[in-house]
Amino acid sequence: MTYERAAIQRMHGYVPGKQPANPDTIKLNTNENPYPPSPAVFEVLRDISAESLRKYPEPMAQEFRNEAARLHGVSPDQIVAVNGGDELLRMVITTFVDPGQPIGVLSPSYSLYPVLAAIQASPVISVPATADYGVPREFAARMNEAGVNLSLLVNPHAPSGALLTRAQIAEIAAELDGVLLVDEAYIDFVDPELDHNLMPLLQTHDNVLMLRTLSKGYSLAGLRYGYGIGSKGLIAPLLTKTRDSYNVDAIAQRVATAALRDQAHARASWERVRAERGRVHEALAALGFKAPKSQSNFLLATVPEGKNAQELQRNLEARGLLVRYFAEPRLDDALRITIGTPDQNNRLLSTLSELL
Amino acid sequence: MTYERAAIQRMHGYVPGKQPANPDTIKLNTNENPYPPSPAVFEVLRDISAESLRKYPEPMAQEFRNEAARLHGVSPDQIVAVNGGDELLRMVITTFVDPGQPIGVLSPSYSLYPVLAAIQASPVISVPATADYGVPREFAARMNEAGVNLSLLVNPHAPSGALLTRAQIAEIAAELDGVLLVDEAYIDFVDPELDHNLMPLLQTHDNVLMLRTLSKGYSLAGLRYGYGIGSKGLIAPLLTKTRDSYNVDAIAQRVATAALRDQAHARASWERVRAERGRVHEALAALGFKAPKSQSNFLLATVPEGKNAQELQRNLEARGLLVRYFAEPRLDDALRITIGTPDQNNRLLSTLSELL
Repeated sequence: MTYERAAIQRMHGYVPGKQPANPDTIKLNTNENPYPPSPAVFEVLRDISAESLRKYPEPMAQEFRNEAARLHGVSPDQIVAVNGGDELLRMVITTFVDPGQPIGVLSPSYSLYPVLAAIQASPVISVPATADYGVPREFAARMNEAGVNLSLLVNPHAPSGALLTRAQIAEIAAELDGVLLVDEAYIDFVDPELDHNLMPLLQTHDNVLMLRTLSKGYSLAGLRYGYGIGSKGLIAPLLTKTRDSYNVDAIAQRVATAALRDQAHARASWERVRAERGRVHEALAALGFKAPKSQSNFLLATVPEGKNAQELQRNLEARGLLVRYFAEPRLDDALRITIGTPDQNNRLLSTLSELL
Repeated sequence: MTYERAAIQRMHGYVPGKQPANPDTIKLNTNENPYPPSPAVFEVLRDISAESLRKYPEPMAQEFRNEAARLHGVSPDQIVAVNGGDELLRMVITTFVDPGQPIGVLSPSYSLYPVLAAIQASPVISVPATADYGVPREFAARMNEAGVNLSLLVNPHAPSGALLTRAQIAEIAAELDGVLLVDEAYIDFVDPELDHNLMPLLQTHDNVLMLRTLSKGYSLAGLRYGYGIGSKGLIAPLLTKTRDSYNVDAIAQRVATAALRDQAHARASWERVRAERGRVHEALAALGFKAPKSQSNFLLATVPEGKNAQELQRNLEARGLLVRYFAEPRLDDALRITIGTPDQNNRLLSTLSELL
């Protein structure tokens, strides 16, 4: 016999990208930053005291929140620290979505969203993305019609890398009756010339919540650390009601604060990823792949005419190269390829060239 | 305007015990172990690599689960690792309790349980503890009648320290229609002569789930690490469906594994706490306090006749000594006092003696 709720019995869990044990595998499948985190991180790790482990951590992650507030020019009350961005996604659903109430997404999108919706027994209202992976005009109207109180948009879009502008997001937020979570997991890789920054929206739109993570931009996927930025009204219930009381541990709080403080180190890695993104894009095009312009640290590369994407992914894996394949409409003719170091990218390009 | 669900608007968050910034404060208020964690923990911290932080952690915490399985003589499929015991409590509610379905508790008990129930919009079916903080005969029948699918019992009991035997728990589990979570946060402090061990129940009762934490027994409250032990059927949905995909980080997995491996170090601290528990109990009795026999690392000390517990707590705090006071029926004439080091306990006893 099972004791699970019916909604849990029915659902399927999220399947994360492979984490191979073999250290020689080239991992271009889960969008990690190919460069190491700030050296300040290792100084912090050597400095962790017995007292700080023996005692409960500071429950509000105050020092980290002060640092993040300074970085973004907001108040610490507008920041909530979380055990990885996934935790914020779960918490916003718990906080803003009644069990069974629908959740709004763009399709295709981050495949965790429907899993989290299923846990809340919530149907997913899914609006197909435009041809260039943008948000269609009718998005907000569809969500309002369906009684959606929480819409999730990842920007830059995953798995395409397409970027919505601030003006586009402002328009959607203004029209939505409910909360708009903008998942900015990949924001650090956007071209600085675009001057893309949603912070000014916080002054005009009380329903916008941004998700940030240290997993990609700060090379700390292993740490599980992210944060939310929003109006005080949206952040307060997350901070004081639905968050596990000590959701981020004492080590992680200190490591994350040190990493965020070392902007110069992080920015240098973003710059290198962007340079390689341009080069890999061109080289893939020369091999017959088509990829939309990406503002992220990955490319969604449609395989050349007559080639099978899943087969290609398996052949790459057999040669020690992991990329991501999605068995889904609109994505099943493409590979999502994380931008690695120049050496890793060269290995990928030469192997693809052999396989084609 | 608010965007919160009605259930979230109505509820109040959990208020954790104070975590003072002043390092000279004597903290006997949140049941931390007064002794430092294993030296192996600091070796691990010096050994964390850039690669292990840059990449996502092993999603299933396999190495830790193998270690915990070995320790308890169960299979790794019967273990789920969590970001602090609080995470397991939240996850079992998400997994086994339909929104709005009642949750069963003993009263008084850990004050987080009703908060987590409120987030799930679930009423709490609360059965008063017996005079010696045991579970009354009618507990399981009351839960079954009310349609409860998840009952939460902390054992040793908090905040009294009273211990239910395995036979008593077996009887309750056998009668319950739903899942019984036994929160063993304080289990490491039970007298070894009692030979208390619930593991054999796993072979006969598929509805029993145990919560363990490294916060107390392993002096790692700052790390946020715990685990659940149960039948494969109870553990599977927690592992593969309702858990955040990477809920325990790469550093925490390694630190926790090292700490669990160093049983000798942990056991020595339990022994010292038990010795002090006996001594403090007697000294408090000599001052006119009454405390039930505790199998935990704290004492629930009813203040001497004519004294005010809350006032006493405030006066202790003014002198740099934190203990816990609960403004609740049956508890509001008592202080919950964590067992500290001999020096800390002496400071407490001499200060109490001055204040009375």
